[in-house]
Amino acid sequence: MAKITGNIVIGQSGGPTAVINASVAGIYKAAKDMGVNKVYGMVHGIQGFLERNLISLEEYLDNGINIEILKRTPSAFLGTCRYKLPEADGNEAVYEQIFRVMEDYDIEAFFYIGGNDSMDTVKLLSDYAKAHDRKERFVGIPKTVDNDLPVTDHCPGYGSAAKYIATSLKEVIRDVESTGLSNPTVLLVEIMGRHAGWLAAASVLAKCEDCAGADAIYLPERVFDIDNFVEHIREVGAKKNTIVIAVSEGIKLADGRFVCELGGGADTVDVFGHKQLSGCALTLAGIVSARTGFKTRAIELSTLQRAANHMASLTDIDEAMQAGYHGVIAAAEGKTGVMVVMERVSQQPYFCRMDTYDIHNIANGEKKVPLEWITEDGRGLKEEMLRYVRPLIMGEVLPVYVDGLPAHLVRR
Amino acid sequence: MAKITGNIVIGQSGGPTAVINASVAGIYKAAKDMGVNKVYGMVHGIQGFLERNLISLEEYLDNGINIEILKRTPSAFLGTCRYKLPEADGNEAVYEQIFRVMEDYDIEAFFYIGGNDSMDTVKLLSDYAKAHDRKERFVGIPKTVDNDLPVTDHCPGYGSAAKYIATSLKEVIRDVESTGLSNPTVLLVEIMGRHAGWLAAASVLAKCEDCAGADAIYLPERVFDIDNFVEHIREVGAKKNTIVIAVSEGIKLADGRFVCELGGGADTVDVFGHKQLSGCALTLAGIVSARTGFKTRAIELSTLQRAANHMASLTDIDEAMQAGYHGVIAAAEGKTGVMVVMERVSQQPYFCRMDTYDIHNIANGEKKVPLEWITEDGRGLKEEMLRYVRPLIMGEVLPVYVDGLPAHLVRR
Repeated sequence: MAKITGNIVIGQSGGPTAVINASVAGIYKAAKDMGVNKVYGMVHGIQGFLERNLISLEEYLDNGINIEILKRTPSAFLGTCRYKLPEADGNEAVYEQIFRVMEDYDIEAFFYIGGNDSMDTVKLLSDYAKAHDRKERFVGIPKTVDNDLPVTDHCPGYGSAAKYIATSLKEVIRDVESTGLSNPTVLLVEIMGRHAGWLAAASVLAKCEDCAGADAIYLPERVFDIDNFVEHIREVGAKKNTIVIAVSEGIKLADGRFVCELGGGADTVDVFGHKQLSGCALTLAGIVSARTGFKTRAIELSTLQRAANHMASLTDIDEAMQAGYHGVIAAAEGKTGVMVVMERVSQQPYFCRMDTYDIHNIANGEKKVPLEWITEDGRGLKEEMLRYVRPLIMGEVLPVYVDGLPAHLVRR
Repeated sequence: MAKITGNIVIGQSGGPTAVINASVAGIYKAAKDMGVNKVYGMVHGIQGFLERNLISLEEYLDNGINIEILKRTPSAFLGTCRYKLPEADGNEAVYEQIFRVMEDYDIEAFFYIGGNDSMDTVKLLSDYAKAHDRKERFVGIPKTVDNDLPVTDHCPGYGSAAKYIATSLKEVIRDVESTGLSNPTVLLVEIMGRHAGWLAAASVLAKCEDCAGADAIYLPERVFDIDNFVEHIREVGAKKNTIVIAVSEGIKLADGRFVCELGGGADTVDVFGHKQLSGCALTLAGIVSARTGFKTRAIELSTLQRAANHMASLTDIDEAMQAGYHGVIAAAEGKTGVMVVMERVSQQPYFCRMDTYDIHNIANGEKKVPLEWITEDGRGLKEEMLRYVRPLIMGEVLPVYVDGLPAHLVRR
């Protein structure tokens, strides 16, 4: 087995997921299996690292039980950040500070668990290290509920969010169906996903033996047409009294405006320049009420869907852990400027192989739901989507309940 | 053991809960233990009964596995209704129709699982039967996530919703805390409960060893003061960057207006004359943004909180089942015009005894959170609330997963 002779550091960045801590557990376990002396955690990612805000993970993870609790802890145990690392050119001081901290803590390998923007940080740091003939290695571990990182078959975090979305959808569909409505009621469920509809597409899972599923699923991959949407609701409403629509928060009109912008909600933009979206289901509910007279209810799954570790997928937790573990092996083999990727080598039985890929082909890229997986009418997903997502939600990890509630591991 | 010689019928009414079907299971089991020939289910409550829309529960529950799946099925298996039975006086035709159906199906006992409005139906029918010297018995089985039925210690459905609310709150608090905010962010979580704050009060559970809980919890039992609310957020924001507020959808201003009405949302009124509330967190988020400049996020737990059987409390499911079972025993003993109530005979170990109580003292009544359980500043709950609610969320019932999702029993 290849070796890492110095210490390592782990950071978590971007929006949290239900299983982002399982990757920390995987990195920690691999490092200890390899005999690494110290495993540091950055408190709030690269931003905390710059301020030398590091903790020693040995203090928390010195026993198997705490590792198990960590895997059952949603959101970033270490804290995340949305700090955008500037280009090295003209910002040498920031880079020098980072490498000074690396040296002071004898850090040989740097693992960053995150999505598109976080991979940009890995790219910039590994490029800088190479340009300056430095030995430190930088490895990205994929994480995003949005599932939009390129190259990898899917991203850890996605499967658990998909499982939660489908479970919640089944439950609220039963709720609305049971109420014995004498007039059509439209339930609009808003699901996360900035420009990629992977999460909303996971609603296909709700259609099964014991559930009719959604009547339509709208993704940002296709232009959203309000007239067509209302017309479809009228058609369904002529046949039955419960109409269920799953919408991605990121659906856009032909003129490029987000649907949620029509609602007059405040436009906020994060540090990466992404618009903060929300309120699309509420906006559509208003349109449907006004144009059809049907009763409406809008449910926004909000951060519940990315935080619901209590409904995590065992497959997802296992893969998040393996991705972390594999990242350490890659670093030990001397790899840097790479992200761990998953390749689906078998569909039945399902199996993904861990590999690494050049970060330059990943950072700031975006993988969307293939247009050919969307039905012609733009209101549903084909069998391919179901085949893709089903294995990712399989299996459960039981929470550890203390006083009736799932227990989590927290920083002191 | 007392006996029921004829058949029985079960109805579900009002808003569904995660455990309303466990009461169906309890009634069914008691009836079969007692040798009752046929157990009918009303499809969509009394409304379906009037139209002779009955199913034979033997077709679904002839084996132990289906009874277990039924307990794991959220929302009303039989379908509910919000039909308001008119007073007998002047509406004899409706009552004659109901008793005609009773005779045609040889129904000796009628069990109605529901909240305040449903108990009114039990009252009217039992009064009519007594006034006309009829032998049929009418028994109410309590059910409401709102927990606002009088006399009974608590209502089946409440404990599971409380468990879901506290679990979700812990998860979203971790989510917002982890993001390494450099500016205060206010997370507003809106919880159900028309005029009683029991569900919102259950947020006290989230404050525990591994979670700071909510910074304030506002119930409809106290007048809501916007200036005081904003002032408190400013104070908390001066000390930390994540501010978590749990609000009941039913909070009202001193002038009697609901907070959600300030948002300009459409006013809708259900058949019982209750205003349909929603959007209170969103309204408050707008006020907080405008007055403090803090970032806000509003999460409405919506129907998720009453449908989340996947996070049901074992205690709640067991009690819902026992309440149904006890109702059949009461009917067999000749009782009518009663509701099953729970009396907490021991706090440690927790134990509730099932009993029955005159429906006239229950129907249309409303039990609120005692004012003395609310802290002086109106922003939190005292130890009494925690002692009250904790035992109700204890224990778990594992869903039966099919293809990665909880499976439910559905009517064919």
